[in-house]
Amino acid sequence: MRCLLFYDITHDRIRTKIADACLDYGLDRVQYSVFTGDISRNLQEELFFKVMDLLGDETGHILLTPVCQKDWRNRSARGEMPPAALRIG
Amino acid sequence: MRCLLFYDITHDRIRTKIADACLDYGLDRVQYSVFTGDISRNLQEELFFKVMDLLGDETGHILLTPVCQKDWRNRSARGEMPPAALRIG
Repeated sequence: MRCLLFYDITHDRIRTKIADACLDYGLDRVQYSVFTGDISRNLQEELFFKVMDLLGDETGHILLTPVCQKDWRNRSARGEMPPAALRIG
Repeated sequence: MRCLLFYDITHDRIRTKIADACLDYGLDRVQYSVFTGDISRNLQEELFFKVMDLLGDETGHILLTPVCQKDWRNRSARGEMPPAALRIG
């Protein structure tokens, strides 16, 4: 099932590790701190715990929500990720 | 219907204007560049066009997706927005 995972984290190194974890679990980067992909609910939960573990006691907000196919088909999107988003993190 | 709106925009002033538009349409800020709220699909579309208009020719990526109640109930979230996210934009 598709999910969206997005985060707001100050600590650069942790942010990079979390981005790497999202990619390792097969998610694609759609924005600098937004990832999406079609993985099982079990893997979504596992990834969320992994990401919480990486964040540890640092300040930050992480949200993962499943998104059904119907809703995802009805999304609207425009533009490209700013090049900086691809370079950082 | 609930929606999530994400953006990745380099231009500070435009980012602020887009955040203001999201708040004007009744969305709540969940992260620095992520808003959510329960507004009609018509208003979601109107907001998306408004936000595209504000972005104009500037580089950036905007994504708006509806999220049904069932999926939203199954979300996982942790932590608080970093204080910087509340100050900027």
